[in-house]
Amino acid sequence: MPLDPALRDRIITAVADGFSEQIAHTQALMRFPSIRGDEQAIQDFVFRSFRDRGYAMDRFAMDRAQIEAHPGGARFSPEHSEAPIVVGIHRPRAEIGRSLILQAHVDVVPPGPADLWTHPAFEPVVEGDWLYGRGGADMKAGHAANLFVLDALRRIGLQPAATVTLQSVVEEESTGNGALMTHLRGYRADAVLIPEPEEEMLVRANTGVLWFRVEVRGRPVHVREMGTGANAIDAAYRVIGALRALEERWNADKAGRPHFEGEAHPINLNIGRIEGGDWASSVPAWCRIDCRIALYPGVSAAEAAREIEAAVAAFSRDDAFLSNSPPSVSFHGFFAEGYVLEEGSEAEAVLGRAHEAATGAVLKSFMTAGYLDTRVHALYDRVPALCYGPKSENIHGFDERVSLASLRRITTAMALFVAEWCGTEAA
Amino acid sequence: MPLDPALRDRIITAVADGFSEQIAHTQALMRFPSIRGDEQAIQDFVFRSFRDRGYAMDRFAMDRAQIEAHPGGARFSPEHSEAPIVVGIHRPRAEIGRSLILQAHVDVVPPGPADLWTHPAFEPVVEGDWLYGRGGADMKAGHAANLFVLDALRRIGLQPAATVTLQSVVEEESTGNGALMTHLRGYRADAVLIPEPEEEMLVRANTGVLWFRVEVRGRPVHVREMGTGANAIDAAYRVIGALRALEERWNADKAGRPHFEGEAHPINLNIGRIEGGDWASSVPAWCRIDCRIALYPGVSAAEAAREIEAAVAAFSRDDAFLSNSPPSVSFHGFFAEGYVLEEGSEAEAVLGRAHEAATGAVLKSFMTAGYLDTRVHALYDRVPALCYGPKSENIHGFDERVSLASLRRITTAMALFVAEWCGTEAA
Repeated sequence: MPLDPALRDRIITAVADGFSEQIAHTQALMRFPSIRGDEQAIQDFVFRSFRDRGYAMDRFAMDRAQIEAHPGGARFSPEHSEAPIVVGIHRPRAEIGRSLILQAHVDVVPPGPADLWTHPAFEPVVEGDWLYGRGGADMKAGHAANLFVLDALRRIGLQPAATVTLQSVVEEESTGNGALMTHLRGYRADAVLIPEPEEEMLVRANTGVLWFRVEVRGRPVHVREMGTGANAIDAAYRVIGALRALEERWNADKAGRPHFEGEAHPINLNIGRIEGGDWASSVPAWCRIDCRIALYPGVSAAEAAREIEAAVAAFSRDDAFLSNSPPSVSFHGFFAEGYVLEEGSEAEAVLGRAHEAATGAVLKSFMTAGYLDTRVHALYDRVPALCYGPKSENIHGFDERVSLASLRRITTAMALFVAEWCGTEAA
Repeated sequence: MPLDPALRDRIITAVADGFSEQIAHTQALMRFPSIRGDEQAIQDFVFRSFRDRGYAMDRFAMDRAQIEAHPGGARFSPEHSEAPIVVGIHRPRAEIGRSLILQAHVDVVPPGPADLWTHPAFEPVVEGDWLYGRGGADMKAGHAANLFVLDALRRIGLQPAATVTLQSVVEEESTGNGALMTHLRGYRADAVLIPEPEEEMLVRANTGVLWFRVEVRGRPVHVREMGTGANAIDAAYRVIGALRALEERWNADKAGRPHFEGEAHPINLNIGRIEGGDWASSVPAWCRIDCRIALYPGVSAAEAAREIEAAVAAFSRDDAFLSNSPPSVSFHGFFAEGYVLEEGSEAEAVLGRAHEAATGAVLKSFMTAGYLDTRVHALYDRVPALCYGPKSENIHGFDERVSLASLRRITTAMALFVAEWCGTEAA
């Protein structure tokens, strides 16, 4: 049932009144250089900011055995984060409304070469409407919004009339194991909202993502006799060629897939990292590439992994060098299926009304071709999992930035959504 | 004047009598994992082994300013060794004969992945005629031979009747600055012998070598929108293609070059190391490749460097991405011209007689397409610089090995060469 217009206006004002403080909190989060493995300090900060507001707290580690046994769990590698998951729980006086999980991740991707940034990556700077810095858009702005939505209600003497669980996870940029762990811990709600930077739209469909590493071994010799040696770097580039062919086959398979057949190139293969050889004057003995590829919803990670292994093996059989020294393929990160948010859910209808009230525009939905933690809730919690968030530019790139005007609109829409979805009671 | 046959036979016996001890000394050298930057301990061991035999000692650091000002000097990089050069000088009672420098390097190339070695790289093992281990052939066997040649003469109460300088250098595998520093320090002799593993042959001509690094910068974006970003790893591969075209042009230019036109492929370009990107799910922002290419004698390093820079620049101008973001080319290692050992020198004639006496075969000469420190003495000392040494397999590769029978023949030939070139006097 749509919100009472007077309440709606009070909430809009309450979000506006807290917005300076919300930006300051976002900037505080952004000052933590929380790349993978370095999220202990920020999770302590998050823990304090939840606890200081009186939420019931839960803090827990990943359960490796449980995660690795799950079909959507990624195998642990030495780089896997050991930071905890932090959860703050609002429990209403009376559980009248529908419960909600508000989730966000604190891990950010590496900033890359410092000299390609206009401002230092972990020193947030506002210029005009843009808040600059690594991880601001993806997704510390959303992380802060989750908290400030509840603050806004409190500012006008209200709180949700249902359980709202604030979840701060890690490993979103590498495995998705953090979100999966909240599922394995047993948290459930009637809906989930994750405010990733989604251009003020709702994610309708999302690809799965696989990370894999290909390692090639050569037989090095002195470069004076290099004709007789195999060069692992050259061999790795030939394998990349074979993987590009697989990528094209998967793209050609878009026909008949509702959210994908209209896209020019829905499946992207990224060769994100390469390393090989020890010495300019030695023919390189080894080369490894770290790759990421997208999967259509409905294709399981295990199925896709088998296809990749088969493609590398088939190519190698016909390659003079690789046939003697077949590359190894290993899966050390995302092992995630995609999902589709089915149309017609009540959660989506409520968010649509909230969005329209906050922005004056109809809520649009779209397909996005990168990994999202909402897959855990869509596939395994089996509840409406809404991924929706502010406008941004250059996430994962240099001078990553989030629009403050958009963030304010989104926070307003989220607050209206919470008020209608959960209902409100006196704080 | 050929050696007296009786003296010749006594020297052959003296080398044989010392050979077990010589192998033990070679193995002691091989146990030092003296890769670039880690040669301090082995140079201390070498210092003690020279000093204990009573040689006049000199130990000195590289003079960076002098080296970098020299046309054959390599620019220093953070990886440049800081180990000293060690020199032991035999001074005769009367300077009657011709003086000689016996030089060898202690640095070795990295062993690469440990599991590709049958025995651990720095634990020397003898199997049949082969002595296995990283740096045994290249060139700790030769390093020990330099010392044991003088020991052999001493065993029969003799010593060279001219100054013989034993030089133990570093940086042979990366810059050649160690050998250059002995020149800059002022050491000269009537001939130089360096017992690199040369298949019992004499090096007649030797390519120069350049090391260079190409760095590509991309403009990374989130992989979900990768069509709009530039991928630095792909761009680096296109640059490698342009460098391969340069390599083919240089090979085509072999016509009319006496020691090279008979070779199928005298100029080798090696892409020895590659590194790029930070994250499987970020489009890579950077990629760098470490390369090594050979030069014909007579082509200066500066001239070749300009050609490489021009080739990369010309290719980049026509490349959609690289034209906006031209790669950088830097020279951080070998900056070395090749040389030719002119036929007809007296030093070569003496070595030829010694070789024939030790092996029963005529001394052959050949062109080798890798860097040699003899270039310093050939080009800048301007004396006969003899590079000549034992049979080996897999230098710079796995299971590097040197033939002990060959090492014994070579040591014998070297002892006979010293006795005739320098003359002998009572020890």
